[in-house]
Amino acid sequence: MQIVDFTPSREQYVWTFGGAEPVMEVAPGTALRLWTEDAFAGRVTSRSDRPSQVLNPKELNPQTGPFHVTGAEPGDTLALHFASIEPARTWAASTTIPLFGALTGTDRTATLQPALPELTWIYDIDLDRAVATFVGHESDFTVELPLAPMLGTVGVAPALREVRTTLVPDYFGGNMDTPELRAGTTVYLGVNVEGALFSVGDGHYRQGEGETCGTALEGAMNVTVLVDLIKGGAPAWPRFEHDDALLTVGSARPLEDAWRCSQVEMVRWMTELYGIGELDAYQLCSQLCLSPLANVVDVNYSAVTKLFKNPLPNVAPYGGMHSSMRTRAATLTAQSM
Amino acid sequence: MQIVDFTPSREQYVWTFGGAEPVMEVAPGTALRLWTEDAFAGRVTSRSDRPSQVLNPKELNPQTGPFHVTGAEPGDTLALHFASIEPARTWAASTTIPLFGALTGTDRTATLQPALPELTWIYDIDLDRAVATFVGHESDFTVELPLAPMLGTVGVAPALREVRTTLVPDYFGGNMDTPELRAGTTVYLGVNVEGALFSVGDGHYRQGEGETCGTALEGAMNVTVLVDLIKGGAPAWPRFEHDDALLTVGSARPLEDAWRCSQVEMVRWMTELYGIGELDAYQLCSQLCLSPLANVVDVNYSAVTKLFKNPLPNVAPYGGMHSSMRTRAATLTAQSM
Amino acid sequence: MQIVDFTPSREQYVWTFGGAEPVMEVAPGTALRLWTEDAFAGRVTSRSDRPSQVLNPKELNPQTGPFHVTGAEPGDTLALHFASIEPARTWAASTTIPLFGALTGTDRTATLQPALPELTWIYDIDLDRAVATFVGHESDFTVELPLAPMLGTVGVAPALREVRTTLVPDYFGGNMDTPELRAGTTVYLGVNVEGALFSVGDGHYRQGEGETCGTALEGAMNVTVLVDLIKGGAPAWPRFEHDDALLTVGSARPLEDAWRCSQVEMVRWMTELYGIGELDAYQLCSQLCLSPLANVVDVNYSAVTKLFKNPLPNVAPYGGMHSSMRTRAATLTAQSM
Amino acid sequence: MQIVDFTPSREQYVWTFGGAEPVMEVAPGTALRLWTEDAFAGRVTSRSDRPSQVLNPKELNPQTGPFHVTGAEPGDTLALHFASIEPARTWAASTTIPLFGALTGTDRTATLQPALPELTWIYDIDLDRAVATFVGHESDFTVELPLAPMLGTVGVAPALREVRTTLVPDYFGGNMDTPELRAGTTVYLGVNVEGALFSVGDGHYRQGEGETCGTALEGAMNVTVLVDLIKGGAPAWPRFEHDDALLTVGSARPLEDAWRCSQVEMVRWMTELYGIGELDAYQLCSQLCLSPLANVVDVNYSAVTKLFKNPLPNVAPYGGMHSSMRTRAATLTAQSM
Repeated sequence: MQIVDFTPSREQYVWTFGGAEPVMEVAPGTALRLWTEDAFAGRVTSRSDRPSQVLNPKELNPQTGPFHVTGAEPGDTLALHFASIEPARTWAASTTIPLFGALTGTDRTATLQPALPELTWIYDIDLDRAVATFVGHESDFTVELPLAPMLGTVGVAPALREVRTTLVPDYFGGNMDTPELRAGTTVYLGVNVEGALFSVGDGHYRQGEGETCGTALEGAMNVTVLVDLIKGGAPAWPRFEHDDALLTVGSARPLEDAWRCSQVEMVRWMTELYGIGELDAYQLCSQLCLSPLANVVDVNYSAVTKLFKNPLPNVAPYGGMHSSMRTRAATLTAQSM
Repeated sequence: MQIVDFTPSREQYVWTFGGAEPVMEVAPGTALRLWTEDAFAGRVTSRSDRPSQVLNPKELNPQTGPFHVTGAEPGDTLALHFASIEPARTWAASTTIPLFGALTGTDRTATLQPALPELTWIYDIDLDRAVATFVGHESDFTVELPLAPMLGTVGVAPALREVRTTLVPDYFGGNMDTPELRAGTTVYLGVNVEGALFSVGDGHYRQGEGETCGTALEGAMNVTVLVDLIKGGAPAWPRFEHDDALLTVGSARPLEDAWRCSQVEMVRWMTELYGIGELDAYQLCSQLCLSPLANVVDVNYSAVTKLFKNPLPNVAPYGGMHSSMRTRAATLTAQSM
Repeated sequence: MQIVDFTPSREQYVWTFGGAEPVMEVAPGTALRLWTEDAFAGRVTSRSDRPSQVLNPKELNPQTGPFHVTGAEPGDTLALHFASIEPARTWAASTTIPLFGALTGTDRTATLQPALPELTWIYDIDLDRAVATFVGHESDFTVELPLAPMLGTVGVAPALREVRTTLVPDYFGGNMDTPELRAGTTVYLGVNVEGALFSVGDGHYRQGEGETCGTALEGAMNVTVLVDLIKGGAPAWPRFEHDDALLTVGSARPLEDAWRCSQVEMVRWMTELYGIGELDAYQLCSQLCLSPLANVVDVNYSAVTKLFKNPLPNVAPYGGMHSSMRTRAATLTAQSM
Repeated sequence: MQIVDFTPSREQYVWTFGGAEPVMEVAPGTALRLWTEDAFAGRVTSRSDRPSQVLNPKELNPQTGPFHVTGAEPGDTLALHFASIEPARTWAASTTIPLFGALTGTDRTATLQPALPELTWIYDIDLDRAVATFVGHESDFTVELPLAPMLGTVGVAPALREVRTTLVPDYFGGNMDTPELRAGTTVYLGVNVEGALFSVGDGHYRQGEGETCGTALEGAMNVTVLVDLIKGGAPAWPRFEHDDALLTVGSARPLEDAWRCSQVEMVRWMTELYGIGELDAYQLCSQLCLSPLANVVDVNYSAVTKLFKNPLPNVAPYGGMHSSMRTRAATLTAQSM
């Protein structure tokens, strides 16, 4: 397997899906060992930092990429298997940002109330014990939270000539912010432009479902991702696969529409995989699927539909791509150790 | 412990929260062994039943109750511990209903498209093996689903002189339809009228999160519920407690508002329990809470915020009411066996 | 024509649709001359009043009624023609109320921000010049606003045994808060219970579309309303008729659903009135209808679809009920002068 | 006054805001006489055309432009006065498009129902009599609708390096689809990139509020627009000015958020114009503003807040820009006749 290492310089950060020149071309089958900067572009470093002062609104959520995948054409399906997602720092930052987040008025849910106070929490990360230490602002309360590393953002260039900021989740993936995007996950994304032009970023050392205050435990990440390509078969919305589950992610507003997108995508996927009709799939989805929210703070909200493979018949989506990549990833990890 | 058995006759079914005479008065500390009819009022019994023909729109979601709790006054907190929730039949029914459900236009999300076909799925229930057998309509696909009994509905009489159909979830509980309401759960509800006037119903032998098609594996249920009362402390929205988690349930439209209600309720609860400030609680909730949807089909949608007790400090909400009831329930089960 | 005068005593105010005993029975064809208290129940009287201190949350939006209409049965259509709606006081009050209104977080759009300041504006009313004088709180700015009297609330008892507070707008009418409900309007409401049990209230001396801050120029009102009954033909949502326009009102959340309800109701009405198909009506509605919002602050939001009768062919909805009532009202006015 | 004529060739149509090379640079003070193609890119021409067959999803809503305005910098305010908007054809087309429109499930309000039938209505336009003739599909119903020419789309390049399809309305203007954008309107848009890069298109010979079925009377248009520039003062959302009214346009989902954006923008504008505080402006906006919907079908929904200048004190927003441009436009019309 071809293994490529890439750490972007600050000038190489990209801020959009679409619209940026690829940093390199990678062939299907390649493994990429990447480093990603945090969503603050590394600008929040101290408990006394105020986001409105230190952040640059034009430089949020930097992506590593984009990568041009050899042979990827519109209508194809990009498969990305995240072999490992590991904190690259011993601290993480989380903040409240004025008029951003779920429990405040925002630029869209526009109100006349003053913004909530701006605060920054810095978490010390103990990688050996896999915990992050919370230290309160309003009291001396402290608690250790288990690490659960994930990537908030993975996406391809959009269709219709669009260029979108990396703050946006949509049908092309993007800033979905779901904890389900962790090591061991394979992501299937529809290709919209030649080369797919995917990128990744927004490492979270841990995040609740919904990302309520708007930020997780934001931190730089070391990411190993295997790249593969399936000709045709582009899903309408991102599909994920774990060893034990299939997942779909919808992104829209209001939140019920995000969820509806993920549900219809799952119903369609079930008809493909199990050879059943749409109404039978609707019935089974209704009784079997979990619905863990992803984010309720971004430009679109993201909702996940999750179907455990068990008790349904054994299936191998996309010709067994996930287990194939899983196997290859295992080799790789063995190799790199 | 006082143990009271009650199975309503058909004439005793109640269809509203508020507005119905109590079937009995129960003292705090009582255990009730109840039987509940299914949400179809038992009218869907065969695979060939069409809901629009067999259902009576005025008789949906019958409740067992209401029970007048001695001493309950507005502002108090009713504690209901569900010691057991067990299928009372060897079959369950699920349907599509015209212009009802999440993946169709409805009376509110009004469109001009024709309704989806009406279908009824009858599941055979094997209680020993704890499985329900799905048999498809559009092919001969069949699969066994694990049972996961729960109650869709528990609620008290609303405030402001209102009477609401039992189809509605709101601040008073009601038709929340969350799988988190299972055996072992303690539910805390704010009391709005003298006696609280709670009732229960809507047994689901299993349900996905969201209850997408609008109905679960609907079936009659045997329910053992312990009743207790906490003076004062009425929460704004229903709170649940499991052995390992605290949960809040918000109900509203659009879905983000249902979720916001549950999140603010959780933030407030965290400040009470852990002695922390609201912004620290906002931060911790953002990083720790799960957000499993309940229903996206009812008059209000319901969303759950779920906080695992671990890794937070040990707390005993409502003076340790849950563990106290848990202990009492264990005695009861021993007793009744 | 039978003319009945009724001014409720304070004890006769009703706070719900459904659940209250009728104050009297009226035969179709009757004219009622009513007095209605303001939505604050008369408790806000001074510029220094703070709503959270002077209001009683259990006594908001008092209605005059309910009236039992002889012969009205479920499925019938109640016709109410508002012959006159005239301010009964020389002042009106408007307020901001904590966590109520469109440009603030609320109990449903739950946020952690503090409430906006509570303020009361008292408007002097000059009935001769038909103006209300605004006097600012934050500066000495003052301006005279034209009076435009309307009723915020008219409704019948709901179906399904429900009792709803008078703060709610829904399919049964209620607190729709549209400026289109003014003198000269005929309102058609579907009857849900025997006698219809309608009531009216919530006089506004003037209101913008949306009722943004949550309150209009609230004031007591003298209302003359003609009552009539159409057997059968109950509309799904309230329909209004002006001399020059047909209107439908939908109430739901999110706002697009309120509007969709009103649009589908209008499309259906157009197919009935003009003998056209549903898709042709959809097309004509798309090109001809206005969409003035009513309220974006109540338990449900309300949206209006308005179709000018011109340039469409002349029609006489409900057998010419509006023009008949208009004619009768003219006689009445002549009579009463 | 410099007068520039421009009719794009088919190759010059642009499909995005941002991302396209300017067709020319224009100095503030210039008048442009433009031709715009219809939103179908001229591909729907006959009553038997089916949108799914004749439309190219990559070529919808072609814009004329973009124009680089000399001296325009981020933070400035572009002023565009539409001196005339006149049908350039004697027919117009409107269609239903599968899974697009307000009264159908869509790609976001995802349902499992089949799409509504695809139909095309061709309207004959009589410019002398200013009417468009509707001819039904489901019967031989026919009616003449008054012309009311408007532009659905005007916008500038977005911020944050984004490129958006011309189907999108947002803070940068775009596909707002409000009938308030008619001859006589001045539009104020915040400048996001050097040169502003504005374009116009999407002529509607008439449209209802909401654009329910998703398309208006779509037709090519001759547009005369005066261009001017105000240094600084960029509004957060598009502002319009008529001779008798001020308007703001918000675009978001759900619809209440679109409306909230327009309302907060109006409250802010009122504080600037009348020297009043935010709460007094909130109160006056609540009592005075109209809320006519624009579109409930596009990627974002658009809602308008409209404030008649009367009875408020005389003000001259942006230094009297509207009346100045109005005067210049009058000269121009005289000139061109």
